[in-house]
Amino acid sequence: MSEKTIPYKIYLEEHEMPRQWYNVRADMKQKPAPLLNPETMQPITLDELSKVFCRELAKQELDDTTAYFDIPEEIWNFYRMYRPAPLVRAYCLEEKLQTPAHIYYKFEGNNTSGSHKLNSAIAQAYYAKKEGLKGVTTETGAGQWGTALSMACSYLDLDCQVYMVKCSYEQKPFRREVMRTYGAQVTPSPSMTTEIGRKINEEFPGTTGSLGCAISEAVEAATSQEGYRYVLGSVLSQVLLHQSIIGLETKAALDKYGVKADMIIGCAGGGSNLGGFVSPFAGEMLRGEADYKLIAVEPSSCPSLTRGKYAYDFCDTGMICPLQKMYTLGSGFIPSSSHSGGLRYHGMSTIVSELYHQGLMEARSVEQTAVFEAAQTFARVEGILPAPESSHAIKVAIDEAMKCKETGESKNIVFCLTGTGYFDMYAYQKFNDGVMGDYIPSDEEICKALAKLPNV
Amino acid sequence: MSEKTIPYKIYLEEHEMPRQWYNVRADMKQKPAPLLNPETMQPITLDELSKVFCRELAKQELDDTTAYFDIPEEIWNFYRMYRPAPLVRAYCLEEKLQTPAHIYYKFEGNNTSGSHKLNSAIAQAYYAKKEGLKGVTTETGAGQWGTALSMACSYLDLDCQVYMVKCSYEQKPFRREVMRTYGAQVTPSPSMTTEIGRKINEEFPGTTGSLGCAISEAVEAATSQEGYRYVLGSVLSQVLLHQSIIGLETKAALDKYGVKADMIIGCAGGGSNLGGFVSPFAGEMLRGEADYKLIAVEPSSCPSLTRGKYAYDFCDTGMICPLQKMYTLGSGFIPSSSHSGGLRYHGMSTIVSELYHQGLMEARSVEQTAVFEAAQTFARVEGILPAPESSHAIKVAIDEAMKCKETGESKNIVFCLTGTGYFDMYAYQKFNDGVMGDYIPSDEEICKALAKLPNV
Repeated sequence: MSEKTIPYKIYLEEHEMPRQWYNVRADMKQKPAPLLNPETMQPITLDELSKVFCRELAKQELDDTTAYFDIPEEIWNFYRMYRPAPLVRAYCLEEKLQTPAHIYYKFEGNNTSGSHKLNSAIAQAYYAKKEGLKGVTTETGAGQWGTALSMACSYLDLDCQVYMVKCSYEQKPFRREVMRTYGAQVTPSPSMTTEIGRKINEEFPGTTGSLGCAISEAVEAATSQEGYRYVLGSVLSQVLLHQSIIGLETKAALDKYGVKADMIIGCAGGGSNLGGFVSPFAGEMLRGEADYKLIAVEPSSCPSLTRGKYAYDFCDTGMICPLQKMYTLGSGFIPSSSHSGGLRYHGMSTIVSELYHQGLMEARSVEQTAVFEAAQTFARVEGILPAPESSHAIKVAIDEAMKCKETGESKNIVFCLTGTGYFDMYAYQKFNDGVMGDYIPSDEEICKALAKLPNV
Repeated sequence: MSEKTIPYKIYLEEHEMPRQWYNVRADMKQKPAPLLNPETMQPITLDELSKVFCRELAKQELDDTTAYFDIPEEIWNFYRMYRPAPLVRAYCLEEKLQTPAHIYYKFEGNNTSGSHKLNSAIAQAYYAKKEGLKGVTTETGAGQWGTALSMACSYLDLDCQVYMVKCSYEQKPFRREVMRTYGAQVTPSPSMTTEIGRKINEEFPGTTGSLGCAISEAVEAATSQEGYRYVLGSVLSQVLLHQSIIGLETKAALDKYGVKADMIIGCAGGGSNLGGFVSPFAGEMLRGEADYKLIAVEPSSCPSLTRGKYAYDFCDTGMICPLQKMYTLGSGFIPSSSHSGGLRYHGMSTIVSELYHQGLMEARSVEQTAVFEAAQTFARVEGILPAPESSHAIKVAIDEAMKCKETGESKNIVFCLTGTGYFDMYAYQKFNDGVMGDYIPSDEEICKALAKLPNV
């Protein structure tokens, strides 16, 4: 199909929006390793997992054979408020780079949460409501997940308790206010409201918290209150299942215009957008139907895929969550205080980890200032100010487009623009002022953290 | 057409996007009064106006007979990056309100500038570039216009100098950083870089500035630098011309589904979104083809339409801009420091003023806390956190929908959601904390300011 016929933005019609989520595990011959109960170190059972998660979500978490799950009508109707999300042809970026490559991006930032997180937030809130719960608890680092969950809970009239990493709580007061506007109760973590919070505050007076610690607090809060369950915005297989709508829509939009993607690029923190985005493409690869180059992009400051170990590890600081086999830097690894809070996690989704381990996916690590340079270039021509996390994917998309310029190839590069940077202007200010640094952990640091992996 | 067939979001296809702007003055028998040269108090000529504005824009400003202007190809291509903007059927809000009314909103916040301002920013930057200028100067209050202009100038590689009202500069550092990310030079106003800025700083030491003062500085900066012209984001007829794309798209989307609007509602500061939004509908009324209820919504703290006088007045504090006949509170009127900076202007577009004067439009003034209540209700169900300015329209749309609930009528209520509130969380914080106040100027205050209107 001639290039001219492809619009700037490919919108699917409502009736073209997927009616089912896709579970890529069903097509994997070698499945991700099972989650382990931290108390018994044995594969966790549905009953055990249902103490932490809603039963329906626990089922989704453990099901690695069902390929498609119907999207409940209520969730689908909610999706209609902001989906289908556009697939944008980055004509302006292509022109700026003078590249023969064709660049596309799936824009997931067009909702108040500002990111793709809402796709799973509404699903998790829905199942909680359906189970008759009073509310849910969660943690948030950068704030995108907390914002999305607050919004979903507000819509369903469900109580929402968010443990926000203390440094974010203080540095991002406006994120906090968005959550409050949606009626959520936001507590800086570590707090004095949980046992583990009090313990950490005692051990490390003045600590500004971490994601792993906030997870522990949120899980404790969920399990100690009647009618509450814990929900999580990334890492889990249920989250990737919900986020598969990103990839399914992208594939449908490309198919609509007869475009065959050569590369699928996503940023990787816990793996939520990346896993959902690549799922249908990885599925085709697993079924031998097509071939794609899948690229995970992580920050050089927190390089779990490129420098971590594939092993069982804890997901949280308090070691009360199930263990999972994943690429990890060790749950004791403290990433530097980069401006991509959403990518500061020591581990990685088991699905993404296994796809990477099987060689179906590549991984690259990129430095912070180079990421912001890419973000600025993109913003100035494409008119969207991207989140720092999303900009990791932009950086590699630009790198690949520049390679095409050298070789003269017109490859189709598709990446996921997970969100907007409206709440990240402090980071942009550092970049604008030329005082942004890069941080790459030393081998010693990583070895030290990896030495403490549990012996499973 | 049955309700069920109307999707949540009506997207026009690219080829359905308007190719021309509509100039409603062409259909007005009684035209808005001419602009006056502040030096001669005579109708300003094209040559005189071209010293301040680009010639092409000055022509558009003075032309009240040409009904349609072709949108230049370059501008149209830029529009394609973020337009057509969706017309959303507010099913969730309708359900929340349990109203038989059908509520639609045109969402103009889906671009990095976060508002509709970009529609005119790109047009004004384009004509400046085409005329071979080096750059443009402007002022910004709330920051939406400055952001939009920075983005447009960055895209066209044009220098951009923004005088930002000092209190906004300090209270909204992140808005400033967005502009800087797009390469603009942002100066707090009053500054020491212009004669009028120095004079104001001397007269009122420690002042945090005003929009009227920043306008004067920007005009002085434009006329004192070779290769620069001044641009403005509202009030002017040229701006309403560019913003007519909002109304034209809205009309096309409604027509596509056979929906006849009963009410068209927009917030009113200088009149940029309102004027552009209502233009095609007012045109039909002027030509006797249809009838609509057009409603302007202004803050009770700055009620130019509902409590001002229809008279010639200055547009800026320095009295160096052309005078226009408009509804005004007097250029000496200082609105209270409300959280809707974009609506804090003493005057009103001449077109909006004249339509209102002829009885084609109603006006309502609403109080701040009621506006934020409406904003919160909207956000929680519709998933978009609206700008305080835009929320004025939401407030009246909800009021009208509640009237329909009483009468049982299924009226079609259409309003313009001009932008998002991502940079207004300080205001939301005040609301969330229950410490937001309302301010209604006394009759004495208004009389005092009106007493100083120029004698024309």
